[in-house]
Amino acid sequence: LTSFNTRLRYQLPISLALFQSVLLVVFILYVDYDDQSNNPSVSNATTTTKENQLYGTFPFFKDINVMLFIGLGLMLSFLKFYGFGGLAFNFLIANFSIQWSLVVQGFFYYNQDGRISLGIKNLVDAEFAAVTAMISAGAFLGRVSPVQLLLLCLMEIPLFVMNNWIITKYFHIIDIGGTVSIHVFSCYFGLGVARIFYHPELSLGHPKEKTTPNSDLMSLVGTVFLWIFWPSFNSVAATVGNAQHRAVLNTFLALSASTLTTFALSSLLNKKGQISLVHLQNATLAGGVAVAITADMIIKPAGAFGLGCLAAIACILGFQYSSPFLARRLKIQDQCGIHNLHGLPGIIGTLGSIIFILSGLVDSSNLKHNGELFHDNSFHDNTVLKVWGTGQTWDARDQALHQAAAFGVTFGVSLLGGLITGLLLKVPCVVHPSHEFYFDDKPFFQELLTVPPCLI
Amino acid sequence: LTSFNTRLRYQLPISLALFQSVLLVVFILYVDYDDQSNNPSVSNATTTTKENQLYGTFPFFKDINVMLFIGLGLMLSFLKFYGFGGLAFNFLIANFSIQWSLVVQGFFYYNQDGRISLGIKNLVDAEFAAVTAMISAGAFLGRVSPVQLLLLCLMEIPLFVMNNWIITKYFHIIDIGGTVSIHVFSCYFGLGVARIFYHPELSLGHPKEKTTPNSDLMSLVGTVFLWIFWPSFNSVAATVGNAQHRAVLNTFLALSASTLTTFALSSLLNKKGQISLVHLQNATLAGGVAVAITADMIIKPAGAFGLGCLAAIACILGFQYSSPFLARRLKIQDQCGIHNLHGLPGIIGTLGSIIFILSGLVDSSNLKHNGELFHDNSFHDNTVLKVWGTGQTWDARDQALHQAAAFGVTFGVSLLGGLITGLLLKVPCVVHPSHEFYFDDKPFFQELLTVPPCLI
Amino acid sequence: LTSFNTRLRYQLPISLALFQSVLLVVFILYVDYDDQSNNPSVSNATTTTKENQLYGTFPFFKDINVMLFIGLGLMLSFLKFYGFGGLAFNFLIANFSIQWSLVVQGFFYYNQDGRISLGIKNLVDAEFAAVTAMISAGAFLGRVSPVQLLLLCLMEIPLFVMNNWIITKYFHIIDIGGTVSIHVFSCYFGLGVARIFYHPELSLGHPKEKTTPNSDLMSLVGTVFLWIFWPSFNSVAATVGNAQHRAVLNTFLALSASTLTTFALSSLLNKKGQISLVHLQNATLAGGVAVAITADMIIKPAGAFGLGCLAAIACILGFQYSSPFLARRLKIQDQCGIHNLHGLPGIIGTLGSIIFILSGLVDSSNLKHNGELFHDNSFHDNTVLKVWGTGQTWDARDQALHQAAAFGVTFGVSLLGGLITGLLLKVPCVVHPSHEFYFDDKPFFQELLTVPPCLI
Repeated sequence: LTSFNTRLRYQLPISLALFQSVLLVVFILYVDYDDQSNNPSVSNATTTTKENQLYGTFPFFKDINVMLFIGLGLMLSFLKFYGFGGLAFNFLIANFSIQWSLVVQGFFYYNQDGRISLGIKNLVDAEFAAVTAMISAGAFLGRVSPVQLLLLCLMEIPLFVMNNWIITKYFHIIDIGGTVSIHVFSCYFGLGVARIFYHPELSLGHPKEKTTPNSDLMSLVGTVFLWIFWPSFNSVAATVGNAQHRAVLNTFLALSASTLTTFALSSLLNKKGQISLVHLQNATLAGGVAVAITADMIIKPAGAFGLGCLAAIACILGFQYSSPFLARRLKIQDQCGIHNLHGLPGIIGTLGSIIFILSGLVDSSNLKHNGELFHDNSFHDNTVLKVWGTGQTWDARDQALHQAAAFGVTFGVSLLGGLITGLLLKVPCVVHPSHEFYFDDKPFFQELLTVPPCLI
Repeated sequence: LTSFNTRLRYQLPISLALFQSVLLVVFILYVDYDDQSNNPSVSNATTTTKENQLYGTFPFFKDINVMLFIGLGLMLSFLKFYGFGGLAFNFLIANFSIQWSLVVQGFFYYNQDGRISLGIKNLVDAEFAAVTAMISAGAFLGRVSPVQLLLLCLMEIPLFVMNNWIITKYFHIIDIGGTVSIHVFSCYFGLGVARIFYHPELSLGHPKEKTTPNSDLMSLVGTVFLWIFWPSFNSVAATVGNAQHRAVLNTFLALSASTLTTFALSSLLNKKGQISLVHLQNATLAGGVAVAITADMIIKPAGAFGLGCLAAIACILGFQYSSPFLARRLKIQDQCGIHNLHGLPGIIGTLGSIIFILSGLVDSSNLKHNGELFHDNSFHDNTVLKVWGTGQTWDARDQALHQAAAFGVTFGVSLLGGLITGLLLKVPCVVHPSHEFYFDDKPFFQELLTVPPCLI
Repeated sequence: LTSFNTRLRYQLPISLALFQSVLLVVFILYVDYDDQSNNPSVSNATTTTKENQLYGTFPFFKDINVMLFIGLGLMLSFLKFYGFGGLAFNFLIANFSIQWSLVVQGFFYYNQDGRISLGIKNLVDAEFAAVTAMISAGAFLGRVSPVQLLLLCLMEIPLFVMNNWIITKYFHIIDIGGTVSIHVFSCYFGLGVARIFYHPELSLGHPKEKTTPNSDLMSLVGTVFLWIFWPSFNSVAATVGNAQHRAVLNTFLALSASTLTTFALSSLLNKKGQISLVHLQNATLAGGVAVAITADMIIKPAGAFGLGCLAAIACILGFQYSSPFLARRLKIQDQCGIHNLHGLPGIIGTLGSIIFILSGLVDSSNLKHNGELFHDNSFHDNTVLKVWGTGQTWDARDQALHQAAAFGVTFGVSLLGGLITGLLLKVPCVVHPSHEFYFDDKPFFQELLTVPPCLI
């Protein structure tokens, strides 16, 4: 038995058992159902669509589950020898992050007299947080151990919640689908970690870093699942009614525009006119990232459509030019190209939100602040925005500036957080795969048995 | 570089870029959100289940998305070397057709003062149109280029909208799930194109035209996804309330009857009693096609059940006898057997609708005309039907005759349209794969890279 | 032609054709739509969320469909040579069982003046019944013919309905998600059959009993689909409102706890710290089984979380210790380990329900009896439970005792039923595969054709 396996055998079970025990104690001491699901006498009283989370939130929650566990899971299982690593470790860190977020966000947002009040809404919020860790992990897919992944989640979730709180509370960002708070944050956090994990040898290629037609096809199926349910992701937090309806329409149009743009540009950039699978697996989703921040605004169908085209172009050019630049000059090896799918479209989306807000076209009533998800803050009126509570006047230019500032803060916080987390993950005592076992399921999953033990 | 690749590199990007540019201009000039999603002051007012498309239509829309992109995509990826062609080109033409339909149908049905009013309902309508192009393309799967597929969509969508308008407006067809308007139309359109693409050599077999156990299994998974969500497809346009409920029940029963019938008949027809995968992948869905036209009628559970059995039998016998006949005598090589899944069950469904209407059992209140989807036209009363607007009396026999006439019109329009479209697709300057690259991803998708560019 | 094939060719089609004919006659004579879907004049009147099954039940129904056909289908297709057997035979027996249940349950629960009244609720109930047969079949996956599977369903469904009726009517069990009525029942029924099918040679291993990385990955995808939609399964029958909300929360928390516990314990039990795929494919779901019986009770989030941890531990230890014991000592070769996923977590869940009920923490208003699904029986009040109808007083201890007794009855009925069914299935004239064709698609599915008949 190698020291790797010995350490894996202790660190993975112990860290998970410790985490589950702490969680159980926290749940016993501090967590209760929310008012809606707790009170036995309420019963059928709150069953109108608007008020009951089972009708208003649960359908969206299920869609987001399919995105996180099936969509992202399959998308990440594109490597020939690392299919289980892609799917199962995604499953692992999703659950770890959701549980951890329930606690962290619980104390931040769902605190009632020192106890966390739990409903389906908390689960949705927790999945919004979890997705950041899952995206970040894509930057160094196949190059770390599950223990390192758990450490990553442990660090990233509280930082995400904190950053989200800052950009909402102090920068009043409007970002219903999380372009800045989720996509930009997770991207630069992931790149920060990847910078620390720079490995010169990888630039020569790695013998196990390859795909098969079948693994690439299944990865594309994952992309399509993400594509289908992205409108639910971007609209779940929007004000019920016309704003949520718009969020669905805008997201769908942006995704559809991204898709055709991807086929066009991918073919154009190749000498033989052939389409790249990497482009298909990523750039078709770029519109969903870019439009998230303005999804519930009245940006008109053409606005969503245009954003989708631009985001896909940015994503593909990112794979072509920015990824090699990051790897060679900045020593950031971005395994899944999260900078292309989440960073660049995130920048485009932020710029888009600024332009739309400045254009005066945006009627911002019924919009909500991210982080203030599910609380009722229709704090703007049509021409002059008012910061809620304070009565301070606030115009479109103020909002535009604050959008930009929130982006800047998020960029800084996430990059710095990623660098520090990267250093922590690299502490030698934490179990990690050696270079030859990168992109390989073997160190982590049992050999397939010929005879299952139940029949012996 | 071959001339094929040079032409692919120009035609695919240029046609898509042109299309996206035109679309963007149309969106800017003519498309706006509908009243429900546009008006910022409406807010939560229209959030009742019945009125808000997010509750009434969006759940169905998502199901149909899974059917179109995952279900049909996986189902079409059954060929060993053409998995990406099946999944990705389906993704491509679905998006192209949806966008194109939004415009064409927008001017037909959602025109408000010269502007298109956009809501989730338009997206559902557009997907109903798109599915015709996607089905038709199955007739010559793997034998055309993506540019030819785009041309196909460009031609078929307006013809579908026009035919739908004719059979609704002038023939008052009752066809809630699109047996005639979608399935029969797409089938004979596709066969028309396939007739033009007849290739004698194919009858000797093609070395690349084979499946693998895994590709067949994934194709069956696609079928099962279609099966699961077919009740949503057939019921989305039905009148909310009992009619929609019936559409779900009837479709489920028809599909379930088809499934057991398929296992029985497929085993019976084989000398060794073995089940055919082609039958499983197709005939289990035949009931969904046949029952679509009567899905919201009171045809009783037994009616739906019987239709499902008959449709599966017709589909399997079609694979056994009609497909070889079409290929040898009529020179129509129907690659995926769309005539067996959409044509023959479509005929059975139409006959079924005529019989049910003549039987007098059918209480047709709350039924809607296809094409008049989502508009409120409960124009019938129980015994005597009245053509809406005119006050003209109308009895069951009139309706039955018009069902048959609508089928005839659809048959003629689609076949002729398909033949003409086929000639257009065969224009030599349009890029097309040579015979040796039929059923092959290679000409269209980049070779898998060993080292992704981001790490170099 | 072997006698196997000759018999298969007659028995499979004839048994299915006979079944479909009988069903059609029953449907004609006895089945009609329910009041909601039948009455054409009701129309939009019953479209409120609470009353209309399309809003209250249909979304859950679709989720359960994905679980049964995709989730379980993929999960069972983990064997290298038996992928179609896993997916397609699951599809077959699901449909057979659903139809059969519609009739059996129809006469039990939906009888109106001698006719069965059919709505979406019946379909959900039928799928609850069907899932028992599908789970039981896992105990001897790949070792029986489809004809034997149909016989199994024919026997098990009525027994399930009867047992369900007994434990509800006479033992007043509270078991909203079916821990006892579905999971325990199906497990011991399946083990009873497996006992009869004991085959000593299997303990030496079977050359075809192996998986591939891809088949294991797809099986894990199936598990994840089951995981995602399990909250819908456990909550569909709960009282609309807070009880249903709780059922979703409790199930999600239990599943999430199971998942992390699985990763921890699986790694700990392996010398190299490696995770077992069999554990991942099963134990991550154990929480869903265990919490089903208490899902709508106020067991607090910590209760659900703890149950999830315990269930996963039991499941994994079951694979490690109980399966070999069953095989060697009790001569029960449990192919898929259903005892580990459904039996042991079922016992834990039942014990949990007893403890929670005795603890006095459980406010049981709004709970419903299983089997009395969808009927309004909020028969308890907070401290003293009253048996509905009788007015007899009933306290928590009475209920706890009855939970235990219902478990005992179910255990006995199912095991005995399984043994008898096993004997019936082994009657020599029923077609069955020989030992060398265990775990093999070949006897049942046609060889893949190189040239489809449609092109010849």
